[in-house]
Amino acid sequence: MKVDGAWRRAIELAPDGDAVIVLDQTALPHRVRWLRVADLAEAARAIRDMVVRGAPLIGATAAYGVALAVRAGIALDDACRTLAATRPTAVNLRWALAAMRAVADAPPGDRGDAAFALAARICDDEVARCEAIGRHGLDVIAQLARGGRPVRVLTHCNAGWLATVDWGTALAPIYRAHEAGIAVEVWVDETRPRNQGLLTAWELAQHGVPHTVIADNAGGHLMQRGQVDACIVGTDRTTAAGDVCNKIGTYLKALAAHDTGVPFYVAAPSPSIDWTIARGGDIPIEERAAAEVRRLTGLRDGAPAEIDLVPAATPVANPAFDVTPARLVTGLITERGTCAASRDGLAALFPEHAAEHGGDGA
Amino acid sequence: MKVDGAWRRAIELAPDGDAVIVLDQTALPHRVRWLRVADLAEAARAIRDMVVRGAPLIGATAAYGVALAVRAGIALDDACRTLAATRPTAVNLRWALAAMRAVADAPPGDRGDAAFALAARICDDEVARCEAIGRHGLDVIAQLARGGRPVRVLTHCNAGWLATVDWGTALAPIYRAHEAGIAVEVWVDETRPRNQGLLTAWELAQHGVPHTVIADNAGGHLMQRGQVDACIVGTDRTTAAGDVCNKIGTYLKALAAHDTGVPFYVAAPSPSIDWTIARGGDIPIEERAAAEVRRLTGLRDGAPAEIDLVPAATPVANPAFDVTPARLVTGLITERGTCAASRDGLAALFPEHAAEHGGDGA
Repeated sequence: MKVDGAWRRAIELAPDGDAVIVLDQTALPHRVRWLRVADLAEAARAIRDMVVRGAPLIGATAAYGVALAVRAGIALDDACRTLAATRPTAVNLRWALAAMRAVADAPPGDRGDAAFALAARICDDEVARCEAIGRHGLDVIAQLARGGRPVRVLTHCNAGWLATVDWGTALAPIYRAHEAGIAVEVWVDETRPRNQGLLTAWELAQHGVPHTVIADNAGGHLMQRGQVDACIVGTDRTTAAGDVCNKIGTYLKALAAHDTGVPFYVAAPSPSIDWTIARGGDIPIEERAAAEVRRLTGLRDGAPAEIDLVPAATPVANPAFDVTPARLVTGLITERGTCAASRDGLAALFPEHAAEHGGDGA
Repeated sequence: MKVDGAWRRAIELAPDGDAVIVLDQTALPHRVRWLRVADLAEAARAIRDMVVRGAPLIGATAAYGVALAVRAGIALDDACRTLAATRPTAVNLRWALAAMRAVADAPPGDRGDAAFALAARICDDEVARCEAIGRHGLDVIAQLARGGRPVRVLTHCNAGWLATVDWGTALAPIYRAHEAGIAVEVWVDETRPRNQGLLTAWELAQHGVPHTVIADNAGGHLMQRGQVDACIVGTDRTTAAGDVCNKIGTYLKALAAHDTGVPFYVAAPSPSIDWTIARGGDIPIEERAAAEVRRLTGLRDGAPAEIDLVPAATPVANPAFDVTPARLVTGLITERGTCAASRDGLAALFPEHAAEHGGDGA
């Protein structure tokens, strides 16, 4: 997608082939800064510190982290263990690491190259899935476009191309609709505490998609007053029964959508589906640092500056995700089409996985 | 209530009797600063700029604003018009201004003194109502206290003594319980965009009540995981049918409470009840300045500092209140007791108002 008019990806192989280049998301929306990630430790740090974030992009970065480690002679197991410990909730991370284990099948001398090739394929597959989600989601948006009035979509957090490699998940249908000439306006939840909504606003602006940032508190009111035609969000982990674990606060918007009759869609690429878990309540929820709530970065006199918002003596809790039960989800938009948020819905699109994991999600 | 160990009110007559002193809530929680409000223009500005905020305290400040104006020879009508224009949603403001019109009955030469006496009585009545809400709300909390485990109450915005004159509305039961030796722990919603949750945390800390600040997004998750025993919030306007207009985001917490079986109480002093409106959807919702979402004040190197969080080019919307339908409210805690959030519930406690305004809320 576009950065200052140039077509880029959120993670790219460096021109010298010895590292990857990622867009530093902790500097956005105020500064565009590309960072070089040259070894395992840097890849782990980039994921842990949320220089890269979003379940699919975490998976892609982890894949390249394994590749960098293997080329440096670090054991595959050790590399996977280091990277798996960075973020506990996103299933894509574990999915990507499992996929990278295929490197062990290559002759020892070829494993470095094999790992880079595999990481590149994981990224390309990621982009293809997002592109397909965009196509299927376009149908959802097109159905809501009536009488020339813009379709008003509310989204939470950032599930755009910054969260994936290209296109995004929740934003892919919006980009597709915008390109197809369907007027779309996006309500962008600020998404405290890390304010990833500002990433969403930034990338929508790069593509000229109209949008408005709102406090996380505002979405329910807008739905009550008929100002939202649909919600589309991403997912960090989707259970085999269609429960959706996504950025903290997603559940509240799903409740409001349900209460007001607004359709609530989740863009769910298949690597986000955890076929081993049925109940969303069983998903471990990452508790992140209190500093994310306490401190905020913005601009002061044009330069990046941090302030302490919450006094140091005030206790803070910071759960990073919540679970939206399948009953509140209108549909899952996957790379194979849109389905009901249910075991049957997912099984119809992904029969091979459903068969492998049996009927009880255990 | 206590400020640095001394017993104070959020609005007090200045020792010289020529002005009122208010605690500047835009400086909290980082600095305790008392401001002198000496004339009508300063009173109006204090309300509009949210130096004072919270429906009851707005009413009390408006009452003193009228008194200052009348003593300065400004016509009662002009004073009321100026103050009524400051904030559109809180019904207490209009209630207090209507009460101050009784000053016109005093002989012209006595109106200044009469106005100050009436404003003082409005404040004392306000405190008495909050104290009574505290007593009735204590019963609610006492019923939730089982087996010695702390009662965990979630609150949104600030409906404490900073929002009233003393005691608070939603926080009065918590202060009462704390004094009665019932262990209470408070989940404090940050309450973007103005972060009034930090005011709540500040005043709870002044009284030693355990509390934890959370992002507005977190409350639903905490309720899902059984970590909230009750929600108690305030109200800026309550309809005759029990719909509650309160700080933006309240509706989302009420939905989560309803979905998870957590009781959801609203502390509603009678001046917050608008007997002329039945449907919450008919309440005008104040749209406040985008700057409230864009800019944030905190501490930088120990000194107050502002940062721009949202880039200037990014569109922002900022509705300040939302409406929680009566069906989501477990009970209204009023100064006359706790009742169902319904016309019948309110009519049983306030038969004189219900009779005056008939059966249809019109």
